[in-house]
Amino acid sequence: MTRIFNEPENFVDDQLAGFADLYADRLRAVPGGVVSRQGGQPQVAVVIGGGSGHYPAFAGLVGPGLATGAVVGNIFTSPSAAQVYSVAKAADQGRGVILSFGNYAGDTMNFGIAAARLRKEGIDTRIVIVTDDIASAQTEQQRRGIAGDFTVFKVMGAAAAAGQGVDDVERVGLAANGATRSLGAAFSGCTMPGADTPLFTVPEGQIGVGLGIHGEPGIRDEALPTAADLAATLADPVLAQAPDEAGTRVGVILNGLGTTKYEELFLLWGLIAARLREAGLEVVDPEVGELVTSLDMGGVSLTLMWLDDELAEYWTADTYTPAYRKQQTPLAGMVRGASGETGVEEAESIPAATAAARQLATIVVQGLQTMAQTLHANEKELGDIDAVAGDGDHGRGMVKGVDAALDAVQHESRRGEPGAAWLLRQAGLAWAEHAGGTSGVLWGAALEAAGGSLTDERDSYAAADYVAAAAAFSGAITDLGGAAVEDKTLVDSLAPFVDTLQAGVDDGTQFGEAFAAAAAVAHQKAADTADLVPKLGRARPLADKSVGTPDAGATSFAMIVGGLAPSTPVGQRHDA
Amino acid sequence: MTRIFNEPENFVDDQLAGFADLYADRLRAVPGGVVSRQGGQPQVAVVIGGGSGHYPAFAGLVGPGLATGAVVGNIFTSPSAAQVYSVAKAADQGRGVILSFGNYAGDTMNFGIAAARLRKEGIDTRIVIVTDDIASAQTEQQRRGIAGDFTVFKVMGAAAAAGQGVDDVERVGLAANGATRSLGAAFSGCTMPGADTPLFTVPEGQIGVGLGIHGEPGIRDEALPTAADLAATLADPVLAQAPDEAGTRVGVILNGLGTTKYEELFLLWGLIAARLREAGLEVVDPEVGELVTSLDMGGVSLTLMWLDDELAEYWTADTYTPAYRKQQTPLAGMVRGASGETGVEEAESIPAATAAARQLATIVVQGLQTMAQTLHANEKELGDIDAVAGDGDHGRGMVKGVDAALDAVQHESRRGEPGAAWLLRQAGLAWAEHAGGTSGVLWGAALEAAGGSLTDERDSYAAADYVAAAAAFSGAITDLGGAAVEDKTLVDSLAPFVDTLQAGVDDGTQFGEAFAAAAAVAHQKAADTADLVPKLGRARPLADKSVGTPDAGATSFAMIVGGLAPSTPVGQRHDA
Repeated sequence: MTRIFNEPENFVDDQLAGFADLYADRLRAVPGGVVSRQGGQPQVAVVIGGGSGHYPAFAGLVGPGLATGAVVGNIFTSPSAAQVYSVAKAADQGRGVILSFGNYAGDTMNFGIAAARLRKEGIDTRIVIVTDDIASAQTEQQRRGIAGDFTVFKVMGAAAAAGQGVDDVERVGLAANGATRSLGAAFSGCTMPGADTPLFTVPEGQIGVGLGIHGEPGIRDEALPTAADLAATLADPVLAQAPDEAGTRVGVILNGLGTTKYEELFLLWGLIAARLREAGLEVVDPEVGELVTSLDMGGVSLTLMWLDDELAEYWTADTYTPAYRKQQTPLAGMVRGASGETGVEEAESIPAATAAARQLATIVVQGLQTMAQTLHANEKELGDIDAVAGDGDHGRGMVKGVDAALDAVQHESRRGEPGAAWLLRQAGLAWAEHAGGTSGVLWGAALEAAGGSLTDERDSYAAADYVAAAAAFSGAITDLGGAAVEDKTLVDSLAPFVDTLQAGVDDGTQFGEAFAAAAAVAHQKAADTADLVPKLGRARPLADKSVGTPDAGATSFAMIVGGLAPSTPVGQRHDA
Repeated sequence: MTRIFNEPENFVDDQLAGFADLYADRLRAVPGGVVSRQGGQPQVAVVIGGGSGHYPAFAGLVGPGLATGAVVGNIFTSPSAAQVYSVAKAADQGRGVILSFGNYAGDTMNFGIAAARLRKEGIDTRIVIVTDDIASAQTEQQRRGIAGDFTVFKVMGAAAAAGQGVDDVERVGLAANGATRSLGAAFSGCTMPGADTPLFTVPEGQIGVGLGIHGEPGIRDEALPTAADLAATLADPVLAQAPDEAGTRVGVILNGLGTTKYEELFLLWGLIAARLREAGLEVVDPEVGELVTSLDMGGVSLTLMWLDDELAEYWTADTYTPAYRKQQTPLAGMVRGASGETGVEEAESIPAATAAARQLATIVVQGLQTMAQTLHANEKELGDIDAVAGDGDHGRGMVKGVDAALDAVQHESRRGEPGAAWLLRQAGLAWAEHAGGTSGVLWGAALEAAGGSLTDERDSYAAADYVAAAAAFSGAITDLGGAAVEDKTLVDSLAPFVDTLQAGVDDGTQFGEAFAAAAAVAHQKAADTADLVPKLGRARPLADKSVGTPDAGATSFAMIVGGLAPSTPVGQRHDA
């Protein structure tokens, strides 16, 4: 949805004014668009354009090595012939003009009328129309232009910057278009400034294959695929439409339509890159990001341009525009190596452990299994609690932590005969590594501390040892986190748990019974945190919003010890 | 909403793998993140990081002149101390390490533990925490880091690249943080990969002022302002919090949070730039775009860094990373001039017109007023019709066209005594200029042709002259658009309209009656286009979807002549 505007009907003019102000040192606003403040040798003027709503196309692509000028129409609407003429006149440097745009009736008409007028004035004017969208028609000349606009513009801009004449710039532009194929998929529609509803919608759980870039729905809807399937959905039809006598090198664009995140595009890129390499292609200077958008539309398109030597030279050439900059010089000093190099260390060998420590190790594994069950079952609830005044990641973080810890101890148990202390240390390292966040660090350090307290060197372990380990666990958390009781943190259920456990064992209560009693106290104390105002942590500025909701960390601790209560060490339970 | 993923829990690892593949020539993947394939002289390592979901922060900012390495945690979750340590070890070049990140408890803890470990190994490690969000706390040290991360990282990266020692890089980093202030506003929440609902929502028609970048809601909700009010909402509190002894130069970021479009940011920039200049500030190298995002959140933040000479030098220095590239060299050749230069031509003088032509001119103005009423009243309906298989812009385009045409003829009538033909020519030029698109060109050319047929030289105008003008109108459209009857275009209602009008006048019917009859035929013929499959125009690939819906251009023509029927020339109406 478009939210920033004054009068919707002035949106295009207003945004162009802001854009021209921002880049006033390198671009000049003229009626109908912008032109580069080009210096140096005169060159063929490459004038691109179309409707607005596609940023960085078209105004963001004006600068050295790319377009000389851009014509800016209303949103999703061809600029007028007068606008095209105005921008082309301002961009002309006496060496001829190329007008280039996607294949739409309005654009073809308006750019055509302007070309006729320019020619009448003696300006050698050529037209290069982009027709890359393989979903839009069987025959190449009838296809729409989508993100392939970019590859064609880029090649012509580089040729013009290299000093080529208008014949050659037109020739390489036509060659670039002939070598370019695109296919896209829409996840969601786009909304015009001031409108309440999108121009089209994609049914929930579906994608529209064969998207347009003007709010046209896809050619057909399909079930929302996994990323791996999406990679195939886009890549395979494009590969099947390789031009005749195509080589094995391709320039590639994986283009985001507007609201699809870069992280999503990178993920998809990894899968598409593998697919292209499997097809025997060498990928040259791939670009992953937003190059030709469609307002706030969700979606992605894949563009391949098969490269010969000339196209490869212009595709990889330097350029510097507001939205697209590529230069070889800064990379020249790089020490390039094989990708995937890492500094992974050799695994430490497992230290010797007593029979008692090895026996206790099986309890640690069982305990972590129980914790994992508890946290998986409560992941959503913990996330919801955390989302009230925090960032909602507590449930996910705890699950990642416990899963990693469980994986680690199972791995260690397979590769040797570890003791409980070693397993708790590995569990702590894995938890902190994979859970991240405050709670991940605290739980990781606490498990390590508990292991350090137990050691793997004793011939037997008794209730007092477990209490000491619990105290070490708690001490690590208060030392590292700096929280006190009533700060609305984990400490609010942890500290009374340890105190109650200690008191029970001191009184001679069986360990299992003391543990259960301590877990019950932790449960109550966690619930009581609902009344507190947090004093630490990232929730600080939103402290008041959290009143009425218990602390997520205190709650997850209480859930964990509640879940563990029936599985305390064998033979120690009161009712056993 | 995040739609591209395989297993949600692998999202971060999967996207990092794709990112590392994409930039394998300049970045090296290591456990926990990425480091630059730095060559040349050793430099202080600037290691930045935090949770994922903020791209280009943090991995997109690694490269010459900016960060040496980035630690990549889970989404919205601090990386672990082990990850920070791993990346810092890989980034270290023997001249010391700076760890820099936003002020969150988890990050502070994990980076702190890693720093302790690095120092224990003899690596001189400093910590620079970013605290720019003025909404998050009163005292600077307690504030969160949001987009101000970027200004602080940029300055330190430039200082390190310039060969400064670790003391100086730390010093300018702390100075940059002390000079940086941010405030943001959220329009909509963000959704974790695999989740169905956003972490928070902003009520419809509201903004959350004081946004966080981890799915934290705003500090307070306000009514959605106009862009002008939003500029004040963001700029004024930031300006009010200028640091002591701040100069008059500011580096500025207008940061998009994820789904706010660049066009919106440019529009807002124009308003904010004016406000900053009014406040007496010189804006240095402003950056408008996505620098620190929050998944698919809608929103914007403004960051100001007040510059002294040293900060200005590092803020404007060259850098080349995946997501942020700035170089002075490509701009060196620019011929810079005053912004706002245009090539606007002098207005032509109005040619002489006969009394009859001047009288007919008043009918032209009235006719355009009626057309404007008709089109405004039907704008939404025409857009909805067009959206079924087209891009939904027909209603808007026609309204823009007729409004511009009406403005033009009213302007001409004020500045002289134009005839009908001159007014129709100006109306046509203005229509084509402002409506854009296919229909804009066609209507513009048609109005010009009608004027050319009438001329301003006759002593009287009769029904046959109007019929000839209508035929000229129609001829321009068929010549330019190349459409025939039954192609499902404007021609389907236009051609029978002209034929019926001609036949009526030939039969001696009063012009008004003949016009009304022709309008009725146009109405019916427009409705009949619902059964047709389009043969031309951008709707081609979606032809089948349009069956059952009439053509938007045929419909708008029928609406217009229907509206005009009661206002044909005075004295010509049958019932007058």
